[in-house]
Amino acid sequence: MSLPGGHERKCRGYAARDASGHLTPFEFTRRALGPKDVYFRVYYCGICHTDLHQIRSEWNSSNYPMVPGHEIVGIVDEVGSEVSRFRPGDRVGVGSIVDSCRECDNCRRNEEQYCRKKKTFTYNDQDRDGNATYGGYSDYMVVSERYAFKMPENLPLEAAAPLLVAGITAYSPMKYFQMESGGKNFGVVGLGGVGHMAVKFAKAMGMHVTVISTSPSKEEEAKKHLGADQFLVSRDETQMRAAKGTLDFIIDTVSAPHPADPYLDLLGPNGKFILVGVPPEPMQFYPRGVVAARKIIGGSLTGGTEETQEMLDFCGKHNVVCEIEKIKMDYVNTAMERLAKNDVRYRFVIDCENSFPVHH
Amino acid sequence: MSLPGGHERKCRGYAARDASGHLTPFEFTRRALGPKDVYFRVYYCGICHTDLHQIRSEWNSSNYPMVPGHEIVGIVDEVGSEVSRFRPGDRVGVGSIVDSCRECDNCRRNEEQYCRKKKTFTYNDQDRDGNATYGGYSDYMVVSERYAFKMPENLPLEAAAPLLVAGITAYSPMKYFQMESGGKNFGVVGLGGVGHMAVKFAKAMGMHVTVISTSPSKEEEAKKHLGADQFLVSRDETQMRAAKGTLDFIIDTVSAPHPADPYLDLLGPNGKFILVGVPPEPMQFYPRGVVAARKIIGGSLTGGTEETQEMLDFCGKHNVVCEIEKIKMDYVNTAMERLAKNDVRYRFVIDCENSFPVHH
Repeated sequence: MSLPGGHERKCRGYAARDASGHLTPFEFTRRALGPKDVYFRVYYCGICHTDLHQIRSEWNSSNYPMVPGHEIVGIVDEVGSEVSRFRPGDRVGVGSIVDSCRECDNCRRNEEQYCRKKKTFTYNDQDRDGNATYGGYSDYMVVSERYAFKMPENLPLEAAAPLLVAGITAYSPMKYFQMESGGKNFGVVGLGGVGHMAVKFAKAMGMHVTVISTSPSKEEEAKKHLGADQFLVSRDETQMRAAKGTLDFIIDTVSAPHPADPYLDLLGPNGKFILVGVPPEPMQFYPRGVVAARKIIGGSLTGGTEETQEMLDFCGKHNVVCEIEKIKMDYVNTAMERLAKNDVRYRFVIDCENSFPVHH
Repeated sequence: MSLPGGHERKCRGYAARDASGHLTPFEFTRRALGPKDVYFRVYYCGICHTDLHQIRSEWNSSNYPMVPGHEIVGIVDEVGSEVSRFRPGDRVGVGSIVDSCRECDNCRRNEEQYCRKKKTFTYNDQDRDGNATYGGYSDYMVVSERYAFKMPENLPLEAAAPLLVAGITAYSPMKYFQMESGGKNFGVVGLGGVGHMAVKFAKAMGMHVTVISTSPSKEEEAKKHLGADQFLVSRDETQMRAAKGTLDFIIDTVSAPHPADPYLDLLGPNGKFILVGVPPEPMQFYPRGVVAARKIIGGSLTGGTEETQEMLDFCGKHNVVCEIEKIKMDYVNTAMERLAKNDVRYRFVIDCENSFPVHH
């Protein structure tokens, strides 16, 4: 099935060639299998909002050709001589980073996402040998074991793929900011890929969950399908006023510019308002409420390797997966158009296995 | 020396009569000594920036006549029948609040400053019987034992008075936001009453201390006299850029409008930027840095009763007191003018004992 170890790996994928973001078939090579590397067949890859930003160069840091994708799951094909956690046939996952300095305080604590030197993104980056990194919209992948995860056996692989970014993005701040106490009141702003995972985690942790959204149309789905306890329309001032001071935590997943105060006002004393989206404009807040009730505004970026494995194990235990719409690779450009309009419940996942039939 | 318990207490003080803020002699009564009350002779009272805001009605919530003052120390004269922690002759202190609901979750945790119902401020407020509260610019005070503190025997009373607000305002966020770990890098913005206490606490906790100020003239004093390790002029972009990412914590004591990003940029991953001043205008920050390095922007308001006593005991143990300029009551209007120009190192303290000779 695979090329012998020690040779560069020929791969097929879809790449954007310029800031139009249009994705077309692309052949490329990945590095030869090193002693600590895992080589795996990609089965599924989630389409994250980051992919859309990056293929269109919306963050002005894109390099082409770019093979996007950082919610990657598959089955191990071959392992290097020093790999201990994976064997051929194992389920494996890769998220948004594939390397980091491994030496700074944050890397030593397995919080590689906050590496002080150089972390290597799964795509649109360079690895330590200077090779371009290519993401999961492809057939095969080589990754250092340290940055690969064991996927729970009981979860459908396709619905588990988005856990690698959407899942950990919601889960990590819930742990770091100590939200996982039963009976607390948890709010989530925005009901997209990350937001719907925050609802599921909060319910699994025993919290009372309020979804806050601009769209009244999402209420039924949020309550009936995702199990949210309460729904607030953020544009409805009467509803928002009535809910003042009632929440302990809010995770804000919205990347569009928006004010902080309407959400800060929903928090009681010691309340925590955590951004996981990145609005491009400055955000405003009045200091008075923050000081008078010891609230915090925080942020959080994906999660580290240890925490990602912990999140996956939590999902296995509590049977938490993403709500997905599975597509084939040749639908990806249409999917991107729909994603730009938030027309997906809640994550597109590419069926890479059946999009790239094996023929070596 | 004192009137018998059960009768209202006649007191002398200085009061503002209107938003001019001009303070003049004023006679008033305090409530009769209840079974849980402590009646004490006021020896010293610090002049807090809040007093200046309040006498001038700068927060649009002032009632006149107003006797300000909430950094109050004295010697107990008489105690109610159920008082257990104080006896006549004991040193006693009172801070910014003298009552709260005592029933909500925050009161039960002795975080009365975040009481969800009604906390009673030491002045410019009403107690539960509807009587006006009057502060420490006076000769005698009646206070419920729960809101009174034991002042360490080894500290000069006059230099300890400002601990009751300036001290606890700096100390409380250092505890709550878990800054008290030796070897961490601590920054303080603004070197006034609260700022200079933050420097002293941080040094006593074993941190490396950076003072960040608009005034280069404060460098020598900050380093030589207060023991700061480093000094940054916030208007010097070269200095600020060189210090990017080097701090773990910042306490921002400045109440004038100012941007957050220059200070957020000084923080490394997991850095904490805590406001204890209250700028009246909205504050701005770019979400990207907060998210990418899991920083937080927080706030903190004075401290609860248990924590205030802990802070006082810490000061007794580590010999921490405020730097003060002692004045008589008849100098108070001049002191207010000088305070408005930040012309004090670092706190005026009124010698109430010798300003109001005893003659009952």
